[in-house]
Amino acid sequence: MEFSSKLLENAVNEMSQLPGIGKRTALRLVLHLLKQPKEQSQKLAGSLVKMRENINFCANCHNISDTKLCEICANPRRDEQLVCVVEDIRDVMAIENTSQYRGHYHVLGGKISPMDGIGPGDLTVPSLVEKVKAGSVRELIFALSSTMEGDTTNFYIYKQIEPYNITTTTIARGISVGDELEYADEVTLGRSILHRIPFESSLKNS
Amino acid sequence: MEFSSKLLENAVNEMSQLPGIGKRTALRLVLHLLKQPKEQSQKLAGSLVKMRENINFCANCHNISDTKLCEICANPRRDEQLVCVVEDIRDVMAIENTSQYRGHYHVLGGKISPMDGIGPGDLTVPSLVEKVKAGSVRELIFALSSTMEGDTTNFYIYKQIEPYNITTTTIARGISVGDELEYADEVTLGRSILHRIPFESSLKNS
Repeated sequence: MEFSSKLLENAVNEMSQLPGIGKRTALRLVLHLLKQPKEQSQKLAGSLVKMRENINFCANCHNISDTKLCEICANPRRDEQLVCVVEDIRDVMAIENTSQYRGHYHVLGGKISPMDGIGPGDLTVPSLVEKVKAGSVRELIFALSSTMEGDTTNFYIYKQIEPYNITTTTIARGISVGDELEYADEVTLGRSILHRIPFESSLKNS
Repeated sequence: MEFSSKLLENAVNEMSQLPGIGKRTALRLVLHLLKQPKEQSQKLAGSLVKMRENINFCANCHNISDTKLCEICANPRRDEQLVCVVEDIRDVMAIENTSQYRGHYHVLGGKISPMDGIGPGDLTVPSLVEKVKAGSVRELIFALSSTMEGDTTNFYIYKQIEPYNITTTTIARGISVGDELEYADEVTLGRSILHRIPFESSLKNS
């Protein structure tokens, strides 16, 4: 792509550094900003810099938070002995949306992935292990995505905390509510039969 | 979407003002920036603000340019009497890419669209009419997209410059090179038969 303006080219190049944004999309977004009042570009730019500079992570669960402790960790009515291990804030938001969970979280900030050079030390794994060691966790729920990296991470953490004898569980994998059996993939369907639950339990939450 | 951080929420809200970027995508982009060094957010923000504040439009063709006259208008080897009317800089870039055009451009900055409240005065139509009036155009090539708004804009300009007796042409519509006839839409195929050209001419450029 050849640009008639260095300013435009810079903006497009920076924009296309974002994941999933190619040069064409970046140009479309940048031209849109050009048609809008200056204030919009300033507000966008300001909000990004302000966020990046001042962002804070909860001292307990490492979730993004504007306060030292996030709202969830600061809430005395939530069970702090029950800890759900997730990858990032999006998973926290998704689980919170269900209104089915009243425990705490532990946000890892990623998954162990030797291919991408991400080891346990790059994540918040050590602080999770410390928490377990200190005896402040009764049950740990693994809620990472079930990919190879997710399974590796689960297993690594499991091995680290094994000596401390706490309950470890993992979220149920199975057929989505409302999905037709015939379209489910074999692995999921297989797991859902293997880990079947008493029929009466299925009546509790609908 | 409920956010645990006002800073994060602001950034996501601003990002999702961009066309085609929903809240989920905005969150993904913003979380990506959080994982990158601060410099990346600063450079992105800086490039957007700098572009929006200092952007300049060519005094002659209204294309985005860092100089008073854009490179095309400043090039003495290009035919300034031949003017191609386009919507925005993306069309200029696309036509320049073909290396088939040696004239000037006139960038309208949009199309006439009463539905969106865009009239000829919001575009650079008046300055184009002035240019024709001053006798500095021999041929005007309409190269707007063939939508209702494009056709309306073409026709409006055509009516304005009709008294000045210059040549007006429009880019050829037809079957794309390499496309199969059976998959072409009827309107395009119909036009391509109606506006057929001598076979010898088709041999000139390939």
